[in-house]
Amino acid sequence: MAHQARLTVEARREQLLDLGLRLFGTKPYDEISIEEIAQLAGMSKGLLYHYFPSKRDFYVACVRAAAAQLRRLPRPDPSLPPFEQVGGILRVYLDHVRANRAKTHAFVRGGIGCDPEVLEVTETARRAVWESMLAGLRASEDEHVLRFAVRSWVRFLEVMALDWAESDIVDKEAVIDVCVAVLDTAVRHARKSRADLPLKTG
Amino acid sequence: MAHQARLTVEARREQLLDLGLRLFGTKPYDEISIEEIAQLAGMSKGLLYHYFPSKRDFYVACVRAAAAQLRRLPRPDPSLPPFEQVGGILRVYLDHVRANRAKTHAFVRGGIGCDPEVLEVTETARRAVWESMLAGLRASEDEHVLRFAVRSWVRFLEVMALDWAESDIVDKEAVIDVCVAVLDTAVRHARKSRADLPLKTG
Repeated sequence: MAHQARLTVEARREQLLDLGLRLFGTKPYDEISIEEIAQLAGMSKGLLYHYFPSKRDFYVACVRAAAAQLRRLPRPDPSLPPFEQVGGILRVYLDHVRANRAKTHAFVRGGIGCDPEVLEVTETARRAVWESMLAGLRASEDEHVLRFAVRSWVRFLEVMALDWAESDIVDKEAVIDVCVAVLDTAVRHARKSRADLPLKTG
Repeated sequence: MAHQARLTVEARREQLLDLGLRLFGTKPYDEISIEEIAQLAGMSKGLLYHYFPSKRDFYVACVRAAAAQLRRLPRPDPSLPPFEQVGGILRVYLDHVRANRAKTHAFVRGGIGCDPEVLEVTETARRAVWESMLAGLRASEDEHVLRFAVRSWVRFLEVMALDWAESDIVDKEAVIDVCVAVLDTAVRHARKSRADLPLKTG
């Protein structure tokens, strides 16, 4: 019975996060009240506070849940050539962003995205992406330009994905083609710079 | 005399903005108090409030001043080929970011960057950049992928520039080479997509 009760608490928490993900995706943070959340969840404010002590705590938990959803997206076959893997990941990512565009917009551009705890969640999610890319590229610690280029590409992709998802008119494969080509160019030129150009300080 | 007094008020305001740009570049927004600003400026809190009604107003004015500095950076010779012009702009921009890296970091990544008024200033500054690029590329309204790609490249450049300025170890020309090559690839592939691929909806 105790186990059953714990599951119910966990399931209830998941339901609240689902609700929050939808809610914060459609309305600005400042326009959402604890009262509204409680009402939509069909529970008292007191019970809601039992799960999340404040609106900010609830929001941070929702951002964490969104980041976890992103981590659970299916991964391509690791035996494929690297750039085919990238194309496969982008297809899955773009579909996810389109299916969750209001939420993505809220978390990338609005809400309380500069709250230190929220920033830490989104930066950790980005870091996981570029670190796995750099590992795939067998990048060494001193390939600075390559590291900058891959980090920068992750932002490039974010803007492309959100612009595409919000426009609703452009073919997904055209966006994937640009993103893959840009990554290829960024990696090749970053590595060329290492071979061709003297590294200077200052 | 009245004219002289107005100039002095304007000059004093400029001095305060200079101070703010240095201050917000070195310390988190939340750790800076109106008392500290007034003390560093050598004026009473009352007089400071005469110039800026609140810390937030002061911060927003500083962000506007930083955006104005960016707009005043020298422009390359418009008779040069487009990608040489881009290289020239990037040289000037990277030097500016390196000379102002703490400030750039604060405005791009920290502070109250998600404050709606601050977001409007930074988005307006970005829009000016990509609109002038799209004009230079003679992009039509329906070149959606090209528009997304140029917007995304502006973010790519921001991350590259800040990573580079904060690392202090990588040759500037290597960063410029990557950024120019990525822009070239993004533009070519975005335009190829228009020619090669059918535009679909959904």
